[in-house]
Amino acid sequence: MIEKPGLFISFEGGEGSGKSTQIRRLEEWFRNQGRDIVVTREPGGSSGAEEIRTLLLTGDPGRWDAVTEALLMFASRRDHVERTIRPALADGKVVLCDRFADSSVAYQGYGHGLGPDYIRNLWELAIDGFKPDLTLMFDLPVEVGLARAGARFANVSAAEDRFERMGLEFHQRLRNGFREIADAEPQRCRIIDADGDIETVSERVISTVEAFIAGQGA
Amino acid sequence: MIEKPGLFISFEGGEGSGKSTQIRRLEEWFRNQGRDIVVTREPGGSSGAEEIRTLLLTGDPGRWDAVTEALLMFASRRDHVERTIRPALADGKVVLCDRFADSSVAYQGYGHGLGPDYIRNLWELAIDGFKPDLTLMFDLPVEVGLARAGARFANVSAAEDRFERMGLEFHQRLRNGFREIADAEPQRCRIIDADGDIETVSERVISTVEAFIAGQGA
Repeated sequence: MIEKPGLFISFEGGEGSGKSTQIRRLEEWFRNQGRDIVVTREPGGSSGAEEIRTLLLTGDPGRWDAVTEALLMFASRRDHVERTIRPALADGKVVLCDRFADSSVAYQGYGHGLGPDYIRNLWELAIDGFKPDLTLMFDLPVEVGLARAGARFANVSAAEDRFERMGLEFHQRLRNGFREIADAEPQRCRIIDADGDIETVSERVISTVEAFIAGQGA
Repeated sequence: MIEKPGLFISFEGGEGSGKSTQIRRLEEWFRNQGRDIVVTREPGGSSGAEEIRTLLLTGDPGRWDAVTEALLMFASRRDHVERTIRPALADGKVVLCDRFADSSVAYQGYGHGLGPDYIRNLWELAIDGFKPDLTLMFDLPVEVGLARAGARFANVSAAEDRFERMGLEFHQRLRNGFREIADAEPQRCRIIDADGDIETVSERVISTVEAFIAGQGA
């Protein structure tokens, strides 16, 4: 039997962009091809990282300053990479991750004004610059995303919404940040138009992933 | 009334070196001179940093790898500096801190082998390289310190001893690390011979602090 190489795909985008739904769809698509899948998300994804997640997502928006937040994000990411992602890839699995280091570049770098280079330095120090093979950036007008996220609120514990309560202008900076990241790394990043029904967006995701795999020769 | 400038003194050294006792002595000495004092310690010292402290000090020695540990230490330190230390110094207070960033250089840099330069890069990113005015390095043969720390164990909750349970060789690397730090920054760092009774060591500490303040012209 020929071993398939591991494949690490991250999903990025603002609130309400439909990442979670599309991850489940893509998971099913990979399972139908007989691949072993690990679905994970940040912050969190390993037992230590989940404890750091609780510190990050609960409490007031001003609980941590932007630098402390970035350090906690990369501490949790380090644990997640070393204990969940790298071992799964070494086993030849497909890892689908809801948010990864690009979220730190977008949220703390662009959104909170630390700047993308500051976060990229930390990325290098924390996880040696380790990156996904493919990053899907779910792009959506901010108002549409926040309206979707707002509708979801009713079903989500209030403790998990710290980032969603930040203002409209902040979310606009996020969106622009994600687009700049995608422009800077076209080999790794693909923008997915997330403004559409689930089926339509799912077709966009799957055709993008198929093209990427075909291009890899995997 | 002429405002006194703030003064930030950190206390460093291995386990059982008597830092806590000597901090209380020095606190009393400053109070007798009418200074306002903040006594604090790391990891911790602000409400967010105390929550990160719990993650750092509980559980198995292998719970976090050295890099994750360093990132968590600097996340807690950032919160401590921004919310406790800088405001106190701006008010003209004396801040006495049980461990600061040199402990990360010694523990994760020398003890766990990340190297001092790696930690100094993180120090720069996390708190812009912010340093104490004076650092007292409590130096003691490792065996003496661990024997003292061992005697203290009976009274301390087992949850707080993660670092103390690391091996003798690790503690030897720590001691050497603290000495190299002191050698590299003689203006800021003073080695205190901590092998002696409380009164003797206290006299060493106070004369060192007096000489430092006289030299500052403060």
